[in-house]
Amino acid sequence: MTFPVVGMVGGGQLARMTHEAGIPLGIRFKLLSDSPQDSAAQVVGEVVIGDYRDLDTLREFARGCDVITFDHEHVPIEHLRALEADGIPVRPGPDALVHAQDKGVMRARLRELGAPCPRNRIVADPADVTVFAEEVGGFPVILKTVRGGYDGKGVWFVRTPEEAADPFLAGVPVLAEEKVDFVRELAANIVRSPHGQAVAYPVVESRQVDGVCDTVIAPAPDLDEELAGQAQRLALTLAAELGVVGHLAVELFETADGRILVNEFAMRPHNSGHWTQDGAVTSQFANHVRAVLDLPLGDPRPRAPWTVMCNVLGGDYPDMYAAYLHCMARDPQLKIHMYGKDVKPGRKVGHVNTYGDDLADVRERARHAADYLRGTITE
Amino acid sequence: MTFPVVGMVGGGQLARMTHEAGIPLGIRFKLLSDSPQDSAAQVVGEVVIGDYRDLDTLREFARGCDVITFDHEHVPIEHLRALEADGIPVRPGPDALVHAQDKGVMRARLRELGAPCPRNRIVADPADVTVFAEEVGGFPVILKTVRGGYDGKGVWFVRTPEEAADPFLAGVPVLAEEKVDFVRELAANIVRSPHGQAVAYPVVESRQVDGVCDTVIAPAPDLDEELAGQAQRLALTLAAELGVVGHLAVELFETADGRILVNEFAMRPHNSGHWTQDGAVTSQFANHVRAVLDLPLGDPRPRAPWTVMCNVLGGDYPDMYAAYLHCMARDPQLKIHMYGKDVKPGRKVGHVNTYGDDLADVRERARHAADYLRGTITE
Repeated sequence: MTFPVVGMVGGGQLARMTHEAGIPLGIRFKLLSDSPQDSAAQVVGEVVIGDYRDLDTLREFARGCDVITFDHEHVPIEHLRALEADGIPVRPGPDALVHAQDKGVMRARLRELGAPCPRNRIVADPADVTVFAEEVGGFPVILKTVRGGYDGKGVWFVRTPEEAADPFLAGVPVLAEEKVDFVRELAANIVRSPHGQAVAYPVVESRQVDGVCDTVIAPAPDLDEELAGQAQRLALTLAAELGVVGHLAVELFETADGRILVNEFAMRPHNSGHWTQDGAVTSQFANHVRAVLDLPLGDPRPRAPWTVMCNVLGGDYPDMYAAYLHCMARDPQLKIHMYGKDVKPGRKVGHVNTYGDDLADVRERARHAADYLRGTITE
Repeated sequence: MTFPVVGMVGGGQLARMTHEAGIPLGIRFKLLSDSPQDSAAQVVGEVVIGDYRDLDTLREFARGCDVITFDHEHVPIEHLRALEADGIPVRPGPDALVHAQDKGVMRARLRELGAPCPRNRIVADPADVTVFAEEVGGFPVILKTVRGGYDGKGVWFVRTPEEAADPFLAGVPVLAEEKVDFVRELAANIVRSPHGQAVAYPVVESRQVDGVCDTVIAPAPDLDEELAGQAQRLALTLAAELGVVGHLAVELFETADGRILVNEFAMRPHNSGHWTQDGAVTSQFANHVRAVLDLPLGDPRPRAPWTVMCNVLGGDYPDMYAAYLHCMARDPQLKIHMYGKDVKPGRKVGHVNTYGDDLADVRERARHAADYLRGTITE
């Protein structure tokens, strides 16, 4: 047989769940991971331990892979170009990934494409932040380092000129964005193949707590159909214009006056798409694998009227396995997804999915399980 | 965290799919496999290559496992007793597994329990087969070696006294069974935990071609509700009486006069339960893992009105991966499950699942995909 080898760079939970989704396809899955304890390294057969920032390591890893894809967006662009020059397909490719690595490049390109964004520009120094604040109607404003941020890291909510100093300390360019008065956050998730085939998942509502995704509701309740279509078309257009291959998550603000604005995006399977594992005909992970292999994509439609995902964060209670007894006995339909990570307070260590016909019930079940696993409730 | 280690003996596709189902639970999965090329060994992180017939190998493997379970039923019973004596939980245990290893023991126990079976007895020699044939109304009769058979191997359809000689050549006791005039084959699949909790999947119809499972339809179409309940209760009773832990598949004949008779059973995930991967709330594999860990079991109910599974056998066309293009493009809802095995004519190398509201459509889609993958159709 001529089943291909997919090389996955990065050993986090996205790689773990991508491997899980790839097993039924009979493909070979090779992992480049920092450590054998990494989430994906625990469950994958073929694991190379090495540093993705080292080109020689990447090249050695890529040998014998039919395609390279990613658990994260941190591989240096010049290394990806070198792999491409070696003849290894890199999906998504460097020309697309640069937009996910650099928020400055991302905003410039979105402006060019006429995509709706919060007002934004690169700011030179703390004084320039005050100028920007005046341009957008005053403080507060959002500052972001253009590179290296995730899950609320690298992002500052700045209320006064005095607070504008910190973001500049890292020596990385700083992007200022207006503080959008949004009513909720949405995510438009799509998957695109090299052929240009693309599928759009239903637009979801994403709720953050302390800058970290907490709950995703699929589909977003009471979302205007026209706005949902607009969000899906926007994600599809961005994927095509940027040449994205694989999963693209576009995180959006929905404003009180019924507009959507692009907040962030990610070119890989994304937390806002975890609900698809149990709630969609084809999961984001299965479709990501199909896309990077240029196979026809699977049906993205939901299998239940409502699916809810809640992240499980580490709490003070380290023995999450013991909590399975209560959670599984209480809800035989509950879907637990744990990542094999050590529990640290605030760390994402897993998520749960629930689905059904009654949104209130589906939400309560996911919330209860996530809280019980974390240890913030005991009954 | 105190997540347990499940030790799986045997590296076939059942182990492969059990690993896939265990990944979301965050457990560790250790595999004892004959060869690194085995179906499961390709996709599992922690693999020990060794011979399950060797007690020292088993003991060494079992060290550090919280529980041992199986991909097949061939581990010598005395080895399982030795592991238990070492303090390792073995699930299912030797007292249960002996019934799956020896058809003579199985039939004797079923008789004791009053379970409906084809008339049967151990036969001493070819002459005794003729006596048995007279007892049950004449030839043809079925002969089975009591140990070592599967997928039609170790089973003879005997039409004349002359044909009765072959089964005795292996030197293994031979069981004679009446040839049942059945209208179709059914399977009642249940999962039972050490606590005694059990869940019953809908009874399915199983179609064999040349003694090998070809198609499974869930639930069995037009099955009398009373008979379905009877089949489920029978499987639950057998599991409780034999002390089965994990998945139990009871293969049944449905007779023209509306009875069910026990044909075979298997104490592990089973081909007649593969539909549950995409068609049930909790798959047989996920529930098998939960059972051997004595976790509360998951909901066994179907997610769609109809689910159909067709096995993919090896044909003359070795490049099944190339066939993905057509199959996936034709049916974006198709679920392919390949086992990473080399294609050999007649060998089970994968299966496909389809589901939906219209049985005729669901069957056609599964049939088409299985035939196309095998290469018996080209459009």
